[in-house]
Amino acid sequence: MSFNTFGKLFRFTTWGESHGVAIGCVVDGCPPGIPLNEADIQLWLDQRRPGASKLTSQRKEPDTVEILSGVFEGKTTGHPISLMIKNEDARPGDYDEIRGKFRPGHADFTYHAKYGIYDYRGGGRASARETACRVAAGAIARKILGAKVKIRAALVQIGPMTIDRKNFDWDQVAKNILFCPDKEAVRPWREALVKIRKEGDSYGGVVEVEATGVSAGLGAPHYAKLDQDIASAMMSIHAAKGVEIGAGFEASSLKGSENADEIRIGNDGPRFLSNNAGGTLGGISTGQPLTARVAFKPTSSILIPQKTIDSSGKETEIITKGRHDPCIAIRAVPVVEAMMACTLADHLLLHRAQCG
Amino acid sequence: MSFNTFGKLFRFTTWGESHGVAIGCVVDGCPPGIPLNEADIQLWLDQRRPGASKLTSQRKEPDTVEILSGVFEGKTTGHPISLMIKNEDARPGDYDEIRGKFRPGHADFTYHAKYGIYDYRGGGRASARETACRVAAGAIARKILGAKVKIRAALVQIGPMTIDRKNFDWDQVAKNILFCPDKEAVRPWREALVKIRKEGDSYGGVVEVEATGVSAGLGAPHYAKLDQDIASAMMSIHAAKGVEIGAGFEASSLKGSENADEIRIGNDGPRFLSNNAGGTLGGISTGQPLTARVAFKPTSSILIPQKTIDSSGKETEIITKGRHDPCIAIRAVPVVEAMMACTLADHLLLHRAQCG
Amino acid sequence: MSFNTFGKLFRFTTWGESHGVAIGCVVDGCPPGIPLNEADIQLWLDQRRPGASKLTSQRKEPDTVEILSGVFEGKTTGHPISLMIKNEDARPGDYDEIRGKFRPGHADFTYHAKYGIYDYRGGGRASARETACRVAAGAIARKILGAKVKIRAALVQIGPMTIDRKNFDWDQVAKNILFCPDKEAVRPWREALVKIRKEGDSYGGVVEVEATGVSAGLGAPHYAKLDQDIASAMMSIHAAKGVEIGAGFEASSLKGSENADEIRIGNDGPRFLSNNAGGTLGGISTGQPLTARVAFKPTSSILIPQKTIDSSGKETEIITKGRHDPCIAIRAVPVVEAMMACTLADHLLLHRAQCG
Amino acid sequence: MSFNTFGKLFRFTTWGESHGVAIGCVVDGCPPGIPLNEADIQLWLDQRRPGASKLTSQRKEPDTVEILSGVFEGKTTGHPISLMIKNEDARPGDYDEIRGKFRPGHADFTYHAKYGIYDYRGGGRASARETACRVAAGAIARKILGAKVKIRAALVQIGPMTIDRKNFDWDQVAKNILFCPDKEAVRPWREALVKIRKEGDSYGGVVEVEATGVSAGLGAPHYAKLDQDIASAMMSIHAAKGVEIGAGFEASSLKGSENADEIRIGNDGPRFLSNNAGGTLGGISTGQPLTARVAFKPTSSILIPQKTIDSSGKETEIITKGRHDPCIAIRAVPVVEAMMACTLADHLLLHRAQCG
Repeated sequence: MSFNTFGKLFRFTTWGESHGVAIGCVVDGCPPGIPLNEADIQLWLDQRRPGASKLTSQRKEPDTVEILSGVFEGKTTGHPISLMIKNEDARPGDYDEIRGKFRPGHADFTYHAKYGIYDYRGGGRASARETACRVAAGAIARKILGAKVKIRAALVQIGPMTIDRKNFDWDQVAKNILFCPDKEAVRPWREALVKIRKEGDSYGGVVEVEATGVSAGLGAPHYAKLDQDIASAMMSIHAAKGVEIGAGFEASSLKGSENADEIRIGNDGPRFLSNNAGGTLGGISTGQPLTARVAFKPTSSILIPQKTIDSSGKETEIITKGRHDPCIAIRAVPVVEAMMACTLADHLLLHRAQCG
Repeated sequence: MSFNTFGKLFRFTTWGESHGVAIGCVVDGCPPGIPLNEADIQLWLDQRRPGASKLTSQRKEPDTVEILSGVFEGKTTGHPISLMIKNEDARPGDYDEIRGKFRPGHADFTYHAKYGIYDYRGGGRASARETACRVAAGAIARKILGAKVKIRAALVQIGPMTIDRKNFDWDQVAKNILFCPDKEAVRPWREALVKIRKEGDSYGGVVEVEATGVSAGLGAPHYAKLDQDIASAMMSIHAAKGVEIGAGFEASSLKGSENADEIRIGNDGPRFLSNNAGGTLGGISTGQPLTARVAFKPTSSILIPQKTIDSSGKETEIITKGRHDPCIAIRAVPVVEAMMACTLADHLLLHRAQCG
Repeated sequence: MSFNTFGKLFRFTTWGESHGVAIGCVVDGCPPGIPLNEADIQLWLDQRRPGASKLTSQRKEPDTVEILSGVFEGKTTGHPISLMIKNEDARPGDYDEIRGKFRPGHADFTYHAKYGIYDYRGGGRASARETACRVAAGAIARKILGAKVKIRAALVQIGPMTIDRKNFDWDQVAKNILFCPDKEAVRPWREALVKIRKEGDSYGGVVEVEATGVSAGLGAPHYAKLDQDIASAMMSIHAAKGVEIGAGFEASSLKGSENADEIRIGNDGPRFLSNNAGGTLGGISTGQPLTARVAFKPTSSILIPQKTIDSSGKETEIITKGRHDPCIAIRAVPVVEAMMACTLADHLLLHRAQCG
Repeated sequence: MSFNTFGKLFRFTTWGESHGVAIGCVVDGCPPGIPLNEADIQLWLDQRRPGASKLTSQRKEPDTVEILSGVFEGKTTGHPISLMIKNEDARPGDYDEIRGKFRPGHADFTYHAKYGIYDYRGGGRASARETACRVAAGAIARKILGAKVKIRAALVQIGPMTIDRKNFDWDQVAKNILFCPDKEAVRPWREALVKIRKEGDSYGGVVEVEATGVSAGLGAPHYAKLDQDIASAMMSIHAAKGVEIGAGFEASSLKGSENADEIRIGNDGPRFLSNNAGGTLGGISTGQPLTARVAFKPTSSILIPQKTIDSSGKETEIITKGRHDPCIAIRAVPVVEAMMACTLADHLLLHRAQCG
């Protein structure tokens, strides 16, 4: 079964292929009376947009969002908000050569296995272009959460290069096109990306995200844990291969006495002396910052020839031309933020339903 | 909102508290005509059961499952299968001392914040005892999947100690009570666990799981990706803090040319030359082994005094007596297997629905 | 697929067969902090219980409910409430004679067609005994709705005999075992029922339900209309064949000018001059009484021989012995009330989620 | 909460307002490989289209559907099918006069009560224009069901005038613009409609629907009964006030011995001697024709002045100008068919999932 809907109460359904007429999503369950216009959404889409530099895909997409429904006289009505983004720089011709060949690391093989049919042009439905819809939905989710909740993400690793955590500064993130929080890392990372692009190869990366200002009490103990749903949201992003909350995998190496976040009373209520938990206990938010890290694999489209087969079952080789990102983790940064926003908005509504 | 239901089509809803009358679950959506009796389920529950050794909790629970509905003349009827496990060794008295104190690392604080009420006895609804229901549901899921699908998990790290992957042998797992696949690691791990228990402390750990024999085609591109749903299922387990698929976080460090799983034609169809993807591409199974790793934090109940507050907001200290596991990751092994089985059974039915 | 779960946010999942060990349900999504004990639920179950008179089934079921989870120190915890009712007067022997024969009007034929297997004893999963679970869940739903919301149902027709609406008096309903609101109708109805029972035959009936005190604003325009969800809830009850809201089928005969509910301002806000709409407009409650009528077919188990076939495809005849109701619509009255309560509780939580 | 999604596995989500840019829907869960183009959908939309005669609304909408995604090289891909219909004859100016006044029988009052905001132009989200999306989705559902399943609906009552059932002839339905199956009734109905339109008033009506060729076995016993889901689907249509399956309300008047559908063996398997059940038993299809009737209230927009209030709470009068149908039940006929098709397609996939 295909399920293109995210969320339980704050829900969005995405549609569209990379080389079709348009992509879009229907956002449902948004509370009424929230001021919303296209500029509110465009702001975030512009962050994600390719073509900004040599370090991301050269595809030129203005990614202009249109609101087709659900807003009346500048406010949400409580009805579905239909958003559409036309595809303007699709060049299906780029893909003639690879028609029928399964690109390693792409969904060509599995779509063919499952559906018996797939749109080979730019990944079709599998294209990371779908993430524009997530960013658009995330813009609305942020409005629901309000100004108190602050969500921000950064790129903390590219290939084998990690930031120096001593230099971590959220204010740096907006100042460089790599969303890197370590001023010192920007230059070597840029150079490495230029080099890998020239080699026709690519790098993976790790994105870190933090949400502050989230009240204690969001989430549910079983099968709708806040950390579970954050993890699920992150793993739904293209090329995500791993996710961790708080201390994450590192917590496995610790003793219970090291990992425990002890509690004191601060000026504004409970104060945790550390945050190995990453802001959740028993699947419910503690009021501390929610923190997660997401691992992205390297871009699968590379210029280095790879062994593969075609849809008739014959062995062949493939080079994936086109206009690709040398490190998709860069453009994943705003997407990770958006998915965090959507998950939190959904849980805010769920909490309000049960606990008033 | 509370959501105690796992799954889309193969679904189970769990209920019950650690120190209540019983725990149980209702398994819904099971195909009809599948031979099923209590022994089929008990087999797997016995693996998870505490009290087996000094290295797990000393709580003595026979964990005897009763089938209350959904089976007629030895076969599933297609109707809900209600399973109940009575609580027989609950000792609520153990918990009088900690009443009202929020145990660090436990859900006491967050349940109190969310619901304004919580059952402090052994974690109440937050207790890992709930995982017995998952294991029971997993036993049914395995029957749906059939003998061709083989799911097995192992403990690959305890605290700072990892296995030597050269020694990895699935056949070792059943031969030691630590579910350890490295024969050489068993003895030092046992000693470390005995020591940490004496110190009143605990260790985290990492569980690795593999499912073989899964056909290509299970999953869906967006918001029901197979790897997303596996990740979500794993992160719904108590104390899970991270999850990765295939090469996982390691993939972030790789180049695209290193990470690519090239494809050739083998005797039985497509053959991948590596499996960094962990058996999924674009959210859909490739037919290769599905592989994942799950990080568990150390047991939060320790005998070392910790700073905390109570429900009236006063600062205090706490020692969590009771009968606790020095490393909960050990008992998580059969739970990880069960959640993998349930996720796959759910996706098998979903795939059948859409693609016939 | 089997779906044994009612509701979106206030949800219950029922399980169990007529002649199994027990039946039960898991109520999920209940707000925390609501005082609840077994007597609160038993009160309503006692109304539905068979064996009360010659006019309902002679099966003697105490229908004693046990709360197995979700309540702590007399209050709901926000976690799943597991309810169990043991089957105590099951007499599977009664059914040996009809084994393998498809009873006309029953689910035997369709269960066999769908699942290839069915429990022929007393209807198995199809038994109206399942409605006890609905009544139990409804008792909890009423607590969520609070005292302001008043739900009451009555039997307004038995076979060809309808009440005289001039005599309609809600206070009469509790005074006779037929839940009849027309004092004058009780005696002739009783006599007709005694007679039809003697003939080995049965009657259908119509139940009318009203909910007052429901605020304006519950419901949603599309696919979760309040009247749609009430209709769906009613049609999920055993033997229901039709449902109408407000003027219902009668509205089809009216002109627009006759059907319109004009609006004036009363002392407490808007006041409608009529209620042909039955309390909803555009799928959302108006604040007027919600009214519905549900048609039930006659009991299918009768002592008059009927032509049928058996599971091997042979033609045969059947007489359904056992202890059956001469008119199931009587016992449907508390079930209709319960389903109304559950639908409203669900929509109350949904409304709170979106509109705060 | 707003829920604009119909269905469990075959699902569609509608969006759009009567006087916005466009309306549309996203159809998800469609099996892959089904031939589909715009003409396949347009065919059914043209039936529903207003402006065809003096007996329906004079709004001139070409209702041209565009497929924006989910179809590749003429076949469904298994991915979401996004459909859009532009609004071309919206005349918001028509509504200035009624701005802020609650039209009796419309959703103005309840939308205002729930959301605090509503689009007064032509009903906004509440407009019956939304049903074009249902018809479009229904066209796809029919393709899934295949040629064996035949769905047809007819208008059997307008205001107080019913057809003579002796004259019932499905072949007549396509021959008159009233979808009337009784040749003799067409002329008097036409005359009555012309008259009521002149009077500025309107009529209600009843639509009957039948699905043949549906295999035994679709549906589920509880909370996803086939008849329950058909009823729910019908009651989700604008202006529907009642629904009945098979003998429906009439069954309430019958004795069990009269209502029973006895079973014999025919040439192609089981043969029922009557169909009072309307094709379902225990919530599951019997293989007989599925039959239902739906009651629609008269169009609420009439030219006769009605008492009402405005959004500031002042008493006033209203006349609803605009281009309205004298009997909306006429145009409901193709919508009823579409909702039947969507319900059956959904249950076909559900059945396949559980029972293979």
